Amino acid sequence: MTIKISIDCMGGDHGPAVTVAAAVAFAKREPDVEFLLVGLEENIHAELKKNHASQHPRIKVIHASETVEMDDPIEVALRRKKDSSMRVAVTQVKEGNAQACVSAGNTGALMAVSRYVLKTMQGVDRPAIFGMLPNQKNKPTYMLDLGANVDCEPLHLHQFAIMGSVLVSALEGREKPSIGLLNVGEEDIKGNDVVKKTAQLLRADHERGLLNFYGNVEGNDIFKGTTDIVVCDGFVGNVTLKAAEGMGRFVKTTLTEAFKSSPLNILGAIIARGALKSISRTMNPSNYNGGSLLGLRGIVFKSHGSADKYSYEWAIQRAFDAAKNDVLTRISTSMAILMPVADPATPDNNDQTAQKIA
Amino acid sequence: MTIKISIDCMGGDHGPAVTVAAAVAFAKREPDVEFLLVGLEENIHAELKKNHASQHPRIKVIHASETVEMDDPIEVALRRKKDSSMRVAVTQVKEGNAQACVSAGNTGALMAVSRYVLKTMQGVDRPAIFGMLPNQKNKPTYMLDLGANVDCEPLHLHQFAIMGSVLVSALEGREKPSIGLLNVGEEDIKGNDVVKKTAQLLRADHERGLLNFYGNVEGNDIFKGTTDIVVCDGFVGNVTLKAAEGMGRFVKTTLTEAFKSSPLNILGAIIARGALKSISRTMNPSNYNGGSLLGLRGIVFKSHGSADKYSYEWAIQRAFDAAKNDVLTRISTSMAILMPVADPATPDNNDQTAQKIA
Repeated sequence: MTIKISIDCMGGDHGPAVTVAAAVAFAKREPDVEFLLVGLEENIHAELKKNHASQHPRIKVIHASETVEMDDPIEVALRRKKDSSMRVAVTQVKEGNAQACVSAGNTGALMAVSRYVLKTMQGVDRPAIFGMLPNQKNKPTYMLDLGANVDCEPLHLHQFAIMGSVLVSALEGREKPSIGLLNVGEEDIKGNDVVKKTAQLLRADHERGLLNFYGNVEGNDIFKGTTDIVVCDGFVGNVTLKAAEGMGRFVKTTLTEAFKSSPLNILGAIIARGALKSISRTMNPSNYNGGSLLGLRGIVFKSHGSADKYSYEWAIQRAFDAAKNDVLTRISTSMAILMPVADPATPDNNDQTAQKIA
Repeated sequence: MTIKISIDCMGGDHGPAVTVAAAVAFAKREPDVEFLLVGLEENIHAELKKNHASQHPRIKVIHASETVEMDDPIEVALRRKKDSSMRVAVTQVKEGNAQACVSAGNTGALMAVSRYVLKTMQGVDRPAIFGMLPNQKNKPTYMLDLGANVDCEPLHLHQFAIMGSVLVSALEGREKPSIGLLNVGEEDIKGNDVVKKTAQLLRADHERGLLNFYGNVEGNDIFKGTTDIVVCDGFVGNVTLKAAEGMGRFVKTTLTEAFKSSPLNILGAIIARGALKSISRTMNPSNYNGGSLLGLRGIVFKSHGSADKYSYEWAIQRAFDAAKNDVLTRISTSMAILMPVADPATPDNNDQTAQKIA
């Protein structure tokens, strides 16, 4: 089955130079993909030419006259730039022309535009960014929110836990993965009011057999693999993710410098190059690029703004896999069942809620 | 000059088994230190015996009948356990019997007890935990708050920036180190209200020539060494620090496994053992243990609860260096000058504020 993916080519720090190049590379190795490259036609065609793919049969260009900048306020992205590459790319999913969309653009804008265009799933108040980090148990630690919601109430963290549980369950084919709540300590008394109240909600769900709540986890538990899923607000999640990536790069530099520091070390590095390659693979932060916007009625993946071609290809890969496995259909039913019924006093109009993210 | 350090021997996950052993090891290599080991006499003496230091001329035991547990609420530590090892150890600093105190106990309790016993410096509303992380520029990134204040207002983050600036200036002997505000993006529009308002305060100070404010930094900037100091609230700081430590351990495991995975890799590791040692030294999270409680009228260092003997020794080393360099006197004057004058409407009674940390 062919999977169609729309790409917001103008998004990210490097624009088409990265996004188009990555799409071309992916199309060359994956016969089951078709791309809709969205953005300034001229720029996209120039990049396609550079990548010897002007006539690629599975790559189509869709012109969008505007670009959401990294420092555009959400209102601008949402109201003033109606023909932005971001919005047009997301609209391809809404209209069924694509099964997934990938963007490296401004996170807040992408979330607002996606919510506005695609709407949220039943019972979901705020979508979250969902991603994975490596751990010592040689499996991923799934984590959310990685940056969509910089201010969260217990209700939101509770919903993130349910969404994460359902998605991981669908992805890994097993019931009730374990959930940890990111905090400054394991003990119940630790943390601020928001996490304490969230813990109460999650414990209640655990007792009712709905979720497998482990309890509080700390920063180091992410890499220990203490729980399958780690739930936190988007501020903490984003900082932690980027800190981990920064540390990954630091490790790489330290390794390279140390192994180049003397002829003996160089020799050792040549002999043990297999080990070094395997370390580099495990530690490469690019392998973990691509967070899914969870809770929407459509698949949208967010790549880091600073992603290079290799890293952007990973985000495309993630989106491709999610669409291929039909994750969306698989989770939306379970989600509707598990989600606590929204308080009727709280307006949950999707068009309104899209405006709330700030 | 002899530096006297009081140790809360009962604090931390391992109690005297780690704290006493670390103090003995430190005393054996550092002739200019004297220890006051505070806690349950019997337990401390038993550990001293195990470490062949029962009659050590520079180690004195002070009995304290109670212990603050890791899950004790702050009120319990503050009001009900007046003879706790933590409180008695901090009191040694207050009474001039010790120049610094080290504890691996419950962070919230240590902060509350230290504030209550020692009081805060003039102009400081809330002390913060100050520590350092390694970066690619081969110098430390100083970071605060690492866990004392899980909820912060712009006023507090502003004070942390001033305290950090003065301390780093004193430690490194240069004017106005650069300050970054930890956020989810570099752009001014990024983040929640608290960081946005803090950025305004810091920009105003920068324009008045009081501080060197770089602007927003992201998680990866900590390890890039973009700024000398990174300011954040205690929740984010604590999670980030522990995540970095967890990742450090993950790197170590990955390295060890990769280099043991085949005879060729083992050979390479033997030949390049110099490189591996240097990597292990740079990456060892224990080297970064020991955060100072900044903003108090006395030197208190917090070690991680889970610290082992080696790691705890580092916390002692930090406290020893701070006392030896008389950091406290050097910073308290500058701090009083730089600190914005507190709103007289806000009560700033130390005894009252000690109760606010929750």
